[in-house]
Amino acid sequence: MEWLTDRAMLQRWRRQVQGQLAFVPTMGALHEGHLRLLRAARESPGRVIASIFVNPTQFAPNEDFARYPRTLEQDRLLLQEAGCDAVFVPSVAEMYHGSGQTRVQVEPLGSDLCGRFRPTHFQGVATVVTILLNLVRPDRLYLGCKDYQQLILLRQMVADLALPVQVLGVETVREADGLAMSSRNRYLAPEERARAVGVAQALAAAQQARRAGERRVEVLQAVAQAVLARHGIEQVDYVAVRDAATLAALPEGVIGDQDPVMLLAVRVGTTRLIDNRILA
Amino acid sequence: MEWLTDRAMLQRWRRQVQGQLAFVPTMGALHEGHLRLLRAARESPGRVIASIFVNPTQFAPNEDFARYPRTLEQDRLLLQEAGCDAVFVPSVAEMYHGSGQTRVQVEPLGSDLCGRFRPTHFQGVATVVTILLNLVRPDRLYLGCKDYQQLILLRQMVADLALPVQVLGVETVREADGLAMSSRNRYLAPEERARAVGVAQALAAAQQARRAGERRVEVLQAVAQAVLARHGIEQVDYVAVRDAATLAALPEGVIGDQDPVMLLAVRVGTTRLIDNRILA
Repeated sequence: MEWLTDRAMLQRWRRQVQGQLAFVPTMGALHEGHLRLLRAARESPGRVIASIFVNPTQFAPNEDFARYPRTLEQDRLLLQEAGCDAVFVPSVAEMYHGSGQTRVQVEPLGSDLCGRFRPTHFQGVATVVTILLNLVRPDRLYLGCKDYQQLILLRQMVADLALPVQVLGVETVREADGLAMSSRNRYLAPEERARAVGVAQALAAAQQARRAGERRVEVLQAVAQAVLARHGIEQVDYVAVRDAATLAALPEGVIGDQDPVMLLAVRVGTTRLIDNRILA
Repeated sequence: MEWLTDRAMLQRWRRQVQGQLAFVPTMGALHEGHLRLLRAARESPGRVIASIFVNPTQFAPNEDFARYPRTLEQDRLLLQEAGCDAVFVPSVAEMYHGSGQTRVQVEPLGSDLCGRFRPTHFQGVATVVTILLNLVRPDRLYLGCKDYQQLILLRQMVADLALPVQVLGVETVREADGLAMSSRNRYLAPEERARAVGVAQALAAAQQARRAGERRVEVLQAVAQAVLARHGIEQVDYVAVRDAATLAALPEGVIGDQDPVMLLAVRVGTTRLIDNRILA
């Protein structure tokens, strides 16, 4: 497995790649969710490259950039085991070579949902992913469904800018009790970890209500909110039910022919957790 | 010469291009300035593709999108004579396939100079050029020095986003009296055309003052302004002297070791004219 720390190394490696290339961008602190992305990438023909880059521009000053978990040695072993062919591990200076004036924005989607609470987040994500795609030039981009708004927004960006890459969403991996795997779960104190199960249970309750015939967004949101409250999760950024392809609001607040997605963001202690589920 | 009206045709043509590809994006209404770009592209090895697309997103509602000159048949002949291998001529729907939510911004440069008077202009330019570069995938991008801020901004964008293309600026072509060639010159009534010579003469006067030893930006601007006024050009959007590589303001308003650029934008009647000159 090649360990590529600068652009020149990446370009040299890229030039000798024949055939298809799959790309899995990460911020490191790898867990089973990332490994599922890598397996999906590995299953298709061609080579697989991952990146590890904790991107400062997608964190606000009050957020957890400084304490975001960095587990580089362990990540390296996991990527090697997963059959990765190469890993791009740039420094901040190596990633941002230019003037830093250029920003890619996807609006209004980037200001919706998580964007209401993290106003510059998606601009940071869209910009760094555009840079990564231009450097790596993959045929396929693998993204987790866990960060559902990010997946939809980047899919939109790739289509809008005609970036020559196929975007694939990979299913969320969950702990035994349903908690979606996330690098931020390690912030949770034991008591918080116990309450965090409420997130997945809120989604499951909405799913059940939907299967029982409920089609009103407001009612489904209330069902989820009640489960969160029962788990002592009081800080709810949002619970939303949206078009699963575009994240647009549902006409008249009622589910139509398409299965929508429920998305939520909460804070458990100081840890922000997001999750989502297609209400099928 | 291939006439490519949609993305699929472009992709088919692109796939069979071996070796280098040079790209000259235009809004049509071609004149000698464009032909110099094409000659520069032609002189390097490989194939040459141009595009003709009057991009609605770089015009404000009060601007001249509707009446912008369209001379497609004549453009086609000129491109053929110039030895172009292919021309991409998409419709608006063909250019903007996606959600239209994604914007590329270069800030603060895009809000400076012309951006102060055309607040959404450079965002439209940066976005459409990103799309074009992703569709055409050229090795070299040829841009006119006439639109100097555009040249610097796109060069910045290409560096910032790591777009795999080399940006080349091509010298402005001028009429016998010095007026920079522009598709918009045909808007000028005869009396306006006569006054418009003041633009190039203002730059020439600043150049002379610089050669005579003047290094103060304010004085050079005043020299240019006086020439504009003498030609009855009262509507001056700006006259500026800036770093020629970055368009940054000069420290303490004094020319240092590097030759700066003087840029100006004026209105003659209802026609907006821009021009610039390196003060060497």
